[in-house]
Amino acid sequence: MACMIRAVARRLSRQRFGVRFSSISSVVYERYGNPEEVLQLQTEDAIQPKADEIAFQMLAAPINPADINMIQGTYGMKATFPAIAGNEGVGRITAIGSSVTSKIKIGDHFVPNRPFWGTWRSGGVCPANDILIVPNDISPVSMSMMFVNPTTAYRMLEDFETLNEGDVVIQNGSNSGVGQAVIQIAAARNLKTINVIRARPDLIEITDYLTSLGATEVVTEEFAQSRKLRELIQTMGKPKLALNCVGGKSATALLQNLQQSGTMVTYGGMSRRPISVGTGMMIFSDLKLCGYWQSRWNDSNANSPALTKMLEDLYALVRADKLKMPRHEPRALSEFQEAVKKAWEPMTTTKQVFSMVR
Amino acid sequence: MACMIRAVARRLSRQRFGVRFSSISSVVYERYGNPEEVLQLQTEDAIQPKADEIAFQMLAAPINPADINMIQGTYGMKATFPAIAGNEGVGRITAIGSSVTSKIKIGDHFVPNRPFWGTWRSGGVCPANDILIVPNDISPVSMSMMFVNPTTAYRMLEDFETLNEGDVVIQNGSNSGVGQAVIQIAAARNLKTINVIRARPDLIEITDYLTSLGATEVVTEEFAQSRKLRELIQTMGKPKLALNCVGGKSATALLQNLQQSGTMVTYGGMSRRPISVGTGMMIFSDLKLCGYWQSRWNDSNANSPALTKMLEDLYALVRADKLKMPRHEPRALSEFQEAVKKAWEPMTTTKQVFSMVR
Repeated sequence: MACMIRAVARRLSRQRFGVRFSSISSVVYERYGNPEEVLQLQTEDAIQPKADEIAFQMLAAPINPADINMIQGTYGMKATFPAIAGNEGVGRITAIGSSVTSKIKIGDHFVPNRPFWGTWRSGGVCPANDILIVPNDISPVSMSMMFVNPTTAYRMLEDFETLNEGDVVIQNGSNSGVGQAVIQIAAARNLKTINVIRARPDLIEITDYLTSLGATEVVTEEFAQSRKLRELIQTMGKPKLALNCVGGKSATALLQNLQQSGTMVTYGGMSRRPISVGTGMMIFSDLKLCGYWQSRWNDSNANSPALTKMLEDLYALVRADKLKMPRHEPRALSEFQEAVKKAWEPMTTTKQVFSMVR
Repeated sequence: MACMIRAVARRLSRQRFGVRFSSISSVVYERYGNPEEVLQLQTEDAIQPKADEIAFQMLAAPINPADINMIQGTYGMKATFPAIAGNEGVGRITAIGSSVTSKIKIGDHFVPNRPFWGTWRSGGVCPANDILIVPNDISPVSMSMMFVNPTTAYRMLEDFETLNEGDVVIQNGSNSGVGQAVIQIAAARNLKTINVIRARPDLIEITDYLTSLGATEVVTEEFAQSRKLRELIQTMGKPKLALNCVGGKSATALLQNLQQSGTMVTYGGMSRRPISVGTGMMIFSDLKLCGYWQSRWNDSNANSPALTKMLEDLYALVRADKLKMPRHEPRALSEFQEAVKKAWEPMTTTKQVFSMVR
């Protein structure tokens, strides 16, 4: 946070205009609100890293729903203003402070290792402790989308139920970034998936795409909320795990089709409706309902063997082409207004990703 | 079940009338429905146990809400008709079949070790495998109420959260049999309890009684659903565990006051309303919602070390006068109509217990 505050303070005192070769652009906000109103592109001089810092160039940074929620002030964590937007992204180290460990080299790629790091910028300096070095052989755009959605999908498939080959997982919002990662990680583990999506004009195209990623079944909300899902499950087997990012009736449909002693993990609430569950169903079906938040896991597992294992597994899937990132549209930082607007459109199927090196 | 079907079949064939010294009375039902309509008192001759059976005299058997739900057909398990009502009770062994293990002696007290055993009867025969021998030094009436409510309370305090001295547990329906057991077991473990009850004419008397059992705080639903509970919790500490037998708004109040990563266990649904929980609360507060059903635990833990340990702990609490059974009214089997009606009255504070030896 220190590097950011320093940069913005300097901007405020010098009132620089225009973009120079050695300047840094950042998408910043100084209060919560509608992103179109509160976000601004700021420019300042590039500076040298202090002894315990590194300097970096950002390579790629996606726009995630949580980034928008943070800007709106509706997220579970509060920003310190002024703040640079964006939580996920990949950078490349361009200079290293004199006291930084020799394990970090110029040219290394990295990701932020804490929230509110601020990834929607062309470069900057930051404490060497605030980054995690990642392999250079995975494309920056792919790597930039690895640390929110695929990690969430991976952990939800690991941490709540012991899943064996052939076990069934059901999810809603299946075309989301997490949903697509769930499909692929589950397929790589020979788990079967039932993937609920909303009816929409491009339903067939999306169904085909999710099937190509490894989805066992793709069904609409209407199907899931009817007897048809029960019939499908009679042939496939009842799901042991449900992953919910919608809430409301969609979550109820998942719960009603879970197997005895199954778990529903909630990681989002797109419908803005609560989860409603009958007490009899809780008791006699022995259901478990949990919440999952990747940020909390990250806080509790920094530098842990579990983190290392997860990243090795995810890198291996990407290298084997078994884990593709969502289809995306590359954007310049200067296009932030349009990119944020498009990222927030209902039923969008294309991820907006800032690409700083084009 | 075999012994029961045999007895009822004999009754139907012989059409016996009147009660003799060597006869057996049972409260039976042959279809689901309103207990007042479907329950009947049947009488037949006492018979000798077969080689693998024991003969018994029943000593005491309570009326639990689950017994009524079973008769209504709304319980999670289905009866085989004709059925003898009652699931909990204590008997005394009066005769032993020739091939039964020598560990069982005439005069031993026992409880049923499976559901639908049928305890609302004066005696009978049953397979020796269908009983669990219990100590004779605990009064039959106390022992007869030990295997549904105190076991449920004990397991919910053991199996969902690691509770240390000073930790806070919150529950609703706190004057129920389970609620009173939770208060006492928690007090014996130096846990603090917040006990929510409905406002009622005898509120002060019940508050005093629950406090005498070891309740740290007794509050009304109105208090719990207001800001007052939040203020109380600021001084006491946030609950790590919530025990819910009500559902609806009462459950919401428990959830809203749980500490981060806390658990709410649902074991009843007296309000007949579902549990409603916001997705944001699930995610950011990392809540866990579980169902608990003692019958399922019993099925999975027959003859287990966990069962032995639990019973030893509960017997020790009873012997030390740290676990009292709810206040109760003894009833003859012939008073079953009135007893069942009274057991089902809202806000009843006195347990109806059939006492066969008076």
